[in-house]
Amino acid sequence: MSSLGLDRVRIVLVNPTHPGNIGAAARAMKNMGLSQLHLVCPRGFPGGEATARAANATDILDQARVHRDVDAALEGCSLVFGTSARQRRIPWPLQAPRECAETIRGELAQPETTIAILFGRESRGLTNEELQRCHYHLNVPCDPEYPSLNLAMSVQIVCYELRMAMVGADVSGADEWDFEPAGMEEFEHFFRHLERALIDIGFHDPDNPRQLMVRLRRMFMRIRPDRMELNILRGMLSAVQRAAGKTAGDDPASPPDSSGQWQNHV
Amino acid sequence: MSSLGLDRVRIVLVNPTHPGNIGAAARAMKNMGLSQLHLVCPRGFPGGEATARAANATDILDQARVHRDVDAALEGCSLVFGTSARQRRIPWPLQAPRECAETIRGELAQPETTIAILFGRESRGLTNEELQRCHYHLNVPCDPEYPSLNLAMSVQIVCYELRMAMVGADVSGADEWDFEPAGMEEFEHFFRHLERALIDIGFHDPDNPRQLMVRLRRMFMRIRPDRMELNILRGMLSAVQRAAGKTAGDDPASPPDSSGQWQNHV
Repeated sequence: MSSLGLDRVRIVLVNPTHPGNIGAAARAMKNMGLSQLHLVCPRGFPGGEATARAANATDILDQARVHRDVDAALEGCSLVFGTSARQRRIPWPLQAPRECAETIRGELAQPETTIAILFGRESRGLTNEELQRCHYHLNVPCDPEYPSLNLAMSVQIVCYELRMAMVGADVSGADEWDFEPAGMEEFEHFFRHLERALIDIGFHDPDNPRQLMVRLRRMFMRIRPDRMELNILRGMLSAVQRAAGKTAGDDPASPPDSSGQWQNHV
Repeated sequence: MSSLGLDRVRIVLVNPTHPGNIGAAARAMKNMGLSQLHLVCPRGFPGGEATARAANATDILDQARVHRDVDAALEGCSLVFGTSARQRRIPWPLQAPRECAETIRGELAQPETTIAILFGRESRGLTNEELQRCHYHLNVPCDPEYPSLNLAMSVQIVCYELRMAMVGADVSGADEWDFEPAGMEEFEHFFRHLERALIDIGFHDPDNPRQLMVRLRRMFMRIRPDRMELNILRGMLSAVQRAAGKTAGDDPASPPDSSGQWQNHV
């Protein structure tokens, strides 16, 4: 179990009527690193449908606590959120999942805090009485033309935002790239080589350049090639030059470069 | 249908094997304002299980396009994302759902762009060949100890981020509050009234104040009461004063204020 504090966030499903949603909610929680599932008067739980939809998150179901009312599920909690699709007659402090996750991140910094997020019945959400037990109402954004989010999907979005707030996405393509980005000097070497090769094959006429090299520059700049990729490109250019019966390289006066060497590195 | 541009974002499910996931994905899309579902060789579609899980999003299923291969599903698209749970041998540009949604928001500003997001098989995701057709790989953040997100849940998170990028959460408790926040001057009137009432009932001794009023100030400041709430509080204080046989109000020399009037507004 992770020590991010997410084990102090309870997901409370109030009177869920479709046991499949309980299982799917458990899986959604576990995917995002949450573990504390509380159920108020669930229908058909425990049972095969919940277990099937939980996939490998049956441990969450096994540890789930079943309560007879909402107050019992909130025991020990100092901050309570309740999902609500619509604004009530008396407005309540309202947060979206992203704000809610930020609020919770701040609260979890206090070592003893336990937090509950209430999710209502599939058919009609939480009652007014239940919502009045909440410090904040939580509204998952939806297309107003079709706002009826599935219960487990709401759990998924809220748990996802909690994970994002606590851990972040932790994907950084740049950090994990396999080769260093090429420096501009290397890029310019390549680009001179490209121009030379295009002249060699009669595709480019420096006396009538039009916008060719500008367009090629714009295009290759967008690639932001790494060193390996530049080596490959230069190897290709040298091969083109040789095929055209010319000396390989970016300078017609220089000896052939070591094009082709890149193949040893791929 | 909304005109946010989300009708130019295709959700492409490649070889989904559980028809329930197709229906749940359709519902997830519609909740977030997406409509273009494309299916590559789906199993058991169309069928009752997909329809049941789609709830009121069966229009998305009815309009879904079925293709025999990924290339056909990508026809007309100029930007392609592919969900990928793990980094490949040759790293690819990688985005998380939030970055992906920002990228797409930028691309949709071009009026003709059509964008595809590929979701792979429940069992083993997208093949390397399919992932190589993508400009970006898309990784939904998960607990590394249990990263196997349900297919429709992945669709839900990505569509949610798209909606957040295009529309935002559109919940602002402050904007929809029913009464104006009280100004500080009104608050200070209330606070003097509170102190007076506490003196009247013998709870507070100005000659030995300790930290009582500071603590009460800190507490009531946190409430940030609106005007109605302040009226209610002042009405309560006046009632307390009357019950103690004192003149209602924050100034013992002044005539009784109109406490109790708030009840007409609640």
